[in-house]
Amino acid sequence: MAVYTDVAEGELGAFLKHYPVGDLLSYKGIAEGTENSNFLLHTSTGSYILTLYEKRVEKADLPFFLGLMGHLANKGVSCPLPVTAHDGSVIGTLAGRPAVIITFLEGLSLRRPTATHCAEVGKALAALHLAGADFSMTRPNALAIEGWRKLWTAARGRADEVEPGLAAEVDADFADFERNWPKGLPEGIIHADLFPDNVFFLGEKLSGLIDFYFACNDLYAYDVATCLNAWCFEKDFSFNLTKGKALLAGYQSVRPLSDQEKAALPILARGSALRFMLTRLYDWLTVPDGGLVMKRDPTEYIRRMRFHRAIKSASEYGLAEYGVS
Amino acid sequence: MAVYTDVAEGELGAFLKHYPVGDLLSYKGIAEGTENSNFLLHTSTGSYILTLYEKRVEKADLPFFLGLMGHLANKGVSCPLPVTAHDGSVIGTLAGRPAVIITFLEGLSLRRPTATHCAEVGKALAALHLAGADFSMTRPNALAIEGWRKLWTAARGRADEVEPGLAAEVDADFADFERNWPKGLPEGIIHADLFPDNVFFLGEKLSGLIDFYFACNDLYAYDVATCLNAWCFEKDFSFNLTKGKALLAGYQSVRPLSDQEKAALPILARGSALRFMLTRLYDWLTVPDGGLVMKRDPTEYIRRMRFHRAIKSASEYGLAEYGVS
Repeated sequence: MAVYTDVAEGELGAFLKHYPVGDLLSYKGIAEGTENSNFLLHTSTGSYILTLYEKRVEKADLPFFLGLMGHLANKGVSCPLPVTAHDGSVIGTLAGRPAVIITFLEGLSLRRPTATHCAEVGKALAALHLAGADFSMTRPNALAIEGWRKLWTAARGRADEVEPGLAAEVDADFADFERNWPKGLPEGIIHADLFPDNVFFLGEKLSGLIDFYFACNDLYAYDVATCLNAWCFEKDFSFNLTKGKALLAGYQSVRPLSDQEKAALPILARGSALRFMLTRLYDWLTVPDGGLVMKRDPTEYIRRMRFHRAIKSASEYGLAEYGVS
Repeated sequence: MAVYTDVAEGELGAFLKHYPVGDLLSYKGIAEGTENSNFLLHTSTGSYILTLYEKRVEKADLPFFLGLMGHLANKGVSCPLPVTAHDGSVIGTLAGRPAVIITFLEGLSLRRPTATHCAEVGKALAALHLAGADFSMTRPNALAIEGWRKLWTAARGRADEVEPGLAAEVDADFADFERNWPKGLPEGIIHADLFPDNVFFLGEKLSGLIDFYFACNDLYAYDVATCLNAWCFEKDFSFNLTKGKALLAGYQSVRPLSDQEKAALPILARGSALRFMLTRLYDWLTVPDGGLVMKRDPTEYIRRMRFHRAIKSASEYGLAEYGVS
């Protein structure tokens, strides 16, 4: 939520000459993204986002992220399209940092999405999974079980400061996941962070998906489970079954889930809740207060972990025609 | 340089229904202004700036600032036009704060303005002075000598920490200004803060003047003197005579300065340099490091004060046909 790097008009003008974006009319540093510096540009051909990548983004992963956005946009997914420079490159250098121009998507991210919005998100997620199937690059999920384990090792000693009993609770989850984490489910490109912040709407119509910087190869159903966590819980941590139904029906209208995927949803949702709890917990315990990174409460995800632990069947998420086992 | 207040899409949408701006397409918090929270809005009718006034702005002064912008814009000055709500009001309430929508001006503020840009600024400043002449409201300059004295009283004790000898130097200036500050020169509405940050260009053409939150009634020539300080010094603190000439010729092509105004320029420029030195010094000594207010080096203006003290005649600023006294 900050512009880290300042860019002078002269150097930006020189940089833009390498791209087919027309003449620069204005640019404003925008309070978006915690990892990068972002600017909204107006040019004679439209609006663009200029991103300067700060050190928290792995530069080696940029070709994957940008290639994926280009691939998805060309397949009709409403996501930003990286602009290719006249010399064919996508990643340039500005203010000493890797810099990229992407098309600007109009739309609003919603604080209070409705079931109708959840259905749209489900459809868009499935469309993203299908569109990514023939993307040629791969990237392992750095925040799969092994990555969680690293965060947990760093945070475990102080976990009970945040919530008494948390250390034992999470240890038990890890033991369970190491035995029972699903194998052999359909996998491919997932967004991995499709929270309301990263989805734009114009009215009830989804107008864009953004922020592909966690995208990776992993189980499609894990991405669905993350969306259940991100979209279907109310502020009081209750699960909104209507939203769950809408999201899952939307997804399945584009890509039906197999019985194995359905059966795996509760453990995947629990793992996904643990993943977001762990990154929040880690930041909570290690990032100084008042810094540029906004610290978010890990306990919101402890509540979700507990909810999912009590789920007996994926039908409780609102899966249509899925029998209670 | 920060967004202080976050605004949810739902409350913004409800707020905008009161204004004739069309449908909201997107909004981004922008890193602009140190006093307020600013958002760049795209709507179906164009681009706008939404400003939420935080506590550093005197709310009682808002009708003056906004009325002035409306007055000037209607007289053809390229400045933001406050949008009037359907009920005739200009100042609304959003997120518990006074909130205003103004039209967005395209343009770039320049780090390295040329003499051509300085001529444009001179012309625009004079046009602003003429356009403001029949504005019906008045606002005293809170940062005239009395205001400087308050800042100095607060900062004087530690002034020599910043520059040895500064306390004695500034005391002598105050004594001089109290005897010799010009009286009876033409006065009216001045911008009072027309720095490169607050002027937009598209190529060599001036496209907009912004940030009227220091505007007040004072001597026109004082505003000219501030522009000499703001536009005509190089990074090494040398005065660029070509830029000075261009700025003054530009100004005089629209509003000629009287001989009394010309003769007063050196003391006005010295006073203006003291004014910016004092606000910077005050922040330097009182604002904690790492806060949201960017602290700027007061010594840049000590250098300007000294330059102006050595000026024998306003011709040294580049005034055409003005004899050395």
